Amino acid sequence: MSKTAAIIGGGVIGGGWLARFLLNGWDINVFDPDPEAERKISEVLRNARHALPMLYDQPLPAEGKIKFCTKIKDAVTQADWIQESVPERLDIKHSVFTEIQESCRLEAVIGSSTSGFKPSELQENAMRPEQIMVTHPFNPVYLLPLIELVPSAATGSKHIETAKEVLETIGLYPLHVRKEIDAHIADRFLEAVWREGLWLIKDGIATTEEIDNAIRFGFGLRWAQMGLFETFRIAGGEAGMAHFIAQFGPCLSWPWTKLTHVPELTDELTQMIADQSEAQSGHKSIRELERLRDNNLIAMMRALKQQGSAAGALITAHEDKLRKPLRTTFPMRTVSRIIPVDWTDYNGHMNEGRYGQIFSDAADAFMIEIGADAEYIAAGNSFFTAETTIKYLAETLAGQNVYVNTQVLRSDGKKVKLFHQMRGENDIIFATCEQFMLHVNLTTRKSCPPLPHVQNRMDALALAHKENKSCTLV
Amino acid sequence: MSKTAAIIGGGVIGGGWLARFLLNGWDINVFDPDPEAERKISEVLRNARHALPMLYDQPLPAEGKIKFCTKIKDAVTQADWIQESVPERLDIKHSVFTEIQESCRLEAVIGSSTSGFKPSELQENAMRPEQIMVTHPFNPVYLLPLIELVPSAATGSKHIETAKEVLETIGLYPLHVRKEIDAHIADRFLEAVWREGLWLIKDGIATTEEIDNAIRFGFGLRWAQMGLFETFRIAGGEAGMAHFIAQFGPCLSWPWTKLTHVPELTDELTQMIADQSEAQSGHKSIRELERLRDNNLIAMMRALKQQGSAAGALITAHEDKLRKPLRTTFPMRTVSRIIPVDWTDYNGHMNEGRYGQIFSDAADAFMIEIGADAEYIAAGNSFFTAETTIKYLAETLAGQNVYVNTQVLRSDGKKVKLFHQMRGENDIIFATCEQFMLHVNLTTRKSCPPLPHVQNRMDALALAHKENKSCTLV
Repeated sequence: MSKTAAIIGGGVIGGGWLARFLLNGWDINVFDPDPEAERKISEVLRNARHALPMLYDQPLPAEGKIKFCTKIKDAVTQADWIQESVPERLDIKHSVFTEIQESCRLEAVIGSSTSGFKPSELQENAMRPEQIMVTHPFNPVYLLPLIELVPSAATGSKHIETAKEVLETIGLYPLHVRKEIDAHIADRFLEAVWREGLWLIKDGIATTEEIDNAIRFGFGLRWAQMGLFETFRIAGGEAGMAHFIAQFGPCLSWPWTKLTHVPELTDELTQMIADQSEAQSGHKSIRELERLRDNNLIAMMRALKQQGSAAGALITAHEDKLRKPLRTTFPMRTVSRIIPVDWTDYNGHMNEGRYGQIFSDAADAFMIEIGADAEYIAAGNSFFTAETTIKYLAETLAGQNVYVNTQVLRSDGKKVKLFHQMRGENDIIFATCEQFMLHVNLTTRKSCPPLPHVQNRMDALALAHKENKSCTLV
Repeated sequence: MSKTAAIIGGGVIGGGWLARFLLNGWDINVFDPDPEAERKISEVLRNARHALPMLYDQPLPAEGKIKFCTKIKDAVTQADWIQESVPERLDIKHSVFTEIQESCRLEAVIGSSTSGFKPSELQENAMRPEQIMVTHPFNPVYLLPLIELVPSAATGSKHIETAKEVLETIGLYPLHVRKEIDAHIADRFLEAVWREGLWLIKDGIATTEEIDNAIRFGFGLRWAQMGLFETFRIAGGEAGMAHFIAQFGPCLSWPWTKLTHVPELTDELTQMIADQSEAQSGHKSIRELERLRDNNLIAMMRALKQQGSAAGALITAHEDKLRKPLRTTFPMRTVSRIIPVDWTDYNGHMNEGRYGQIFSDAADAFMIEIGADAEYIAAGNSFFTAETTIKYLAETLAGQNVYVNTQVLRSDGKKVKLFHQMRGENDIIFATCEQFMLHVNLTTRKSCPPLPHVQNRMDALALAHKENKSCTLV
């Protein structure tokens, strides 16, 4: 395989496909008659170059090359993969497919990004229907892994296999839709929700913002990691899926939406769902699924917290209300926390780097206490860490309560040395850290002494801590 | 406020409320006639105690106390908040409310977890309807922040304000549903999707697992951070929401689902949506929204990767295919990567702790190269880091390409010292790390020399690196 992809139609979706292939080392031939195509693609590509490599903890292959072609023929002749993302009109798609098939290789996969047409419709009057299938992506295509791969009966099994292999090598998840259907699978859900959203807005029940909050602070978080049925399997508890359906099924006949044509929940359908759910998740107990769900939710919400976004912003706001002043008796307790699940390694222990983070957090809290706070930093002054020496004394696991005691070892104008001990129950010492810091003027980026009020407090603490004494800061 | 909550009905939902209050320092009185209630609650509580404190980077308040009551009266008399989570039958709820109101304080909030009834239905014949409102949570209640707060016209404004304040102090997000409606807001979406899912299964289009994958690998990730309308606002691009609706609105009239009663997309409705979307997100450009979306997606997917779950597991599988052998010429390049957005601080720089992680990753890669790989560890041997000294030489930003060169400074039986340099473009050195490691027998947990093949390679590298030479490992 020459690893060449032809991108026919380069809007947001075509551009996303292009970026996905390109950043995975494929060469690209683009055909798009829009005179703005190159600019539009470069915008998608800029986003993708920022985003996709960051997903990974190792480098992606070297980027391929992009060639802009003025004819479909030039774009597709050498291509192993041809991705059609032209407007959703069947006549346009048919004529594009005809032109593609006049020049492309027999073994090339022709994938369509359509959500509106079934593969059998795309294949009507095609020269070689076996090459054609739907490969429906989700925006942003350079980040989201889902591709609905929908063949018709006329699509060749060899082409389907090739398509799956190629999609996986560029980091995508081909969901083989076994029976073609209008809108495939995901868009049926999107449409159902969109339609319900329109009613809620039209009837003045909720605004777009209220609807978004109803989604992203609740079931949206659940669906990002488990989807619908595994989530409900947990809700059913040990009694299982059939119990869940028996309990909640009747709601379907309540007049909850304006869309009331629903399948009858026969014993047969209930059993079918219970069996499928068992095949999907039956190897895990409900307790295990709950733990998996909770750990995923914690990790995602903490990730959003770090981004200052969505549910994560709510946690930060709550934390701000919980924060208490430091205990400044000797030794100063600068951190007090639990080790979260997103701080562990593949081996279940806290990652080496997180010790560094805890000690960095300890130094931040310490600095706020002595007056080197956000305001001080905004005014152009700060302490930078120049060197740390960490001794690892005991393993730390998720869920453990730890605290950090901090002591000033040295206060010498611009030079400060702190000593931190990370401890836990029964006074176990998990790790220690000697942290050498320099006071810096953020404008000149040069070291300089701290402002007097900070210097005085630091000196007072250094003196007291030398004698293992407490010190009241003034 | 005495910070006492009465939990009336202690199943999965009531238990979740209980945990949320308790772990935020409230005392709890439970009433649940189920003889299994105490066991069931203890199971929810075990999950919650694992999960909720991990969301935060600082400690929650000290836990309150739980008292099990045999009468509703005993539970509610002193309570500031009374949460009803009894079965979804209106007659049961009415009799519970009557009993509650005979004993509770006038200013107490009475919240119902119901999804099936409107507040005005709950209030029928109530002694004091002004106390009663719907406060509908989402499972797991101890983690998900959304509460649909639905008052009726008869609910008192003072009670509504108190309810909002209390919910926020325990880390919840009260979504004030301004107009009561069957199923409130979120469950209307859940029902629409559930119903569509049932059709897909009944018609043999997809299994429960395929449906879950169609959700969690695609739009589920989008919805966890932005919801429906802000996501679509981005899809509309600079042309905006009205353009998006014009483009995709017609799909609504296609026969995509069995549920086809849809609102007509009049100019008025289109404008209403566009205006609401502008009020919600208009302060950010589409480019800013794209970047926000992408950074959130990266952070969440990397969080799932660290959990080995959902979309994160796909990234790991892809990485496994991308991995290349180390370059063992001198100096050995043990890490080569980009700094991701989830590694930065509030100030946009890479967090101190992540330097430690990069050097830890470098050591892992080095160890695999010399034969101390997963198999070696599984056989009971490993190197533990005893001490690291990191010198911070330059700031590192998200998006920067960095690599690590690793050198053996000392190989002395069970004692090993590595030296790492983290570098970037133009050979800038961001940081260095001296890492002192001990070889350990994982069974005895005592230090001991490495097995001969590892020892030999380590010795050979130490010798070569002393003279700044490459070394071919055999």
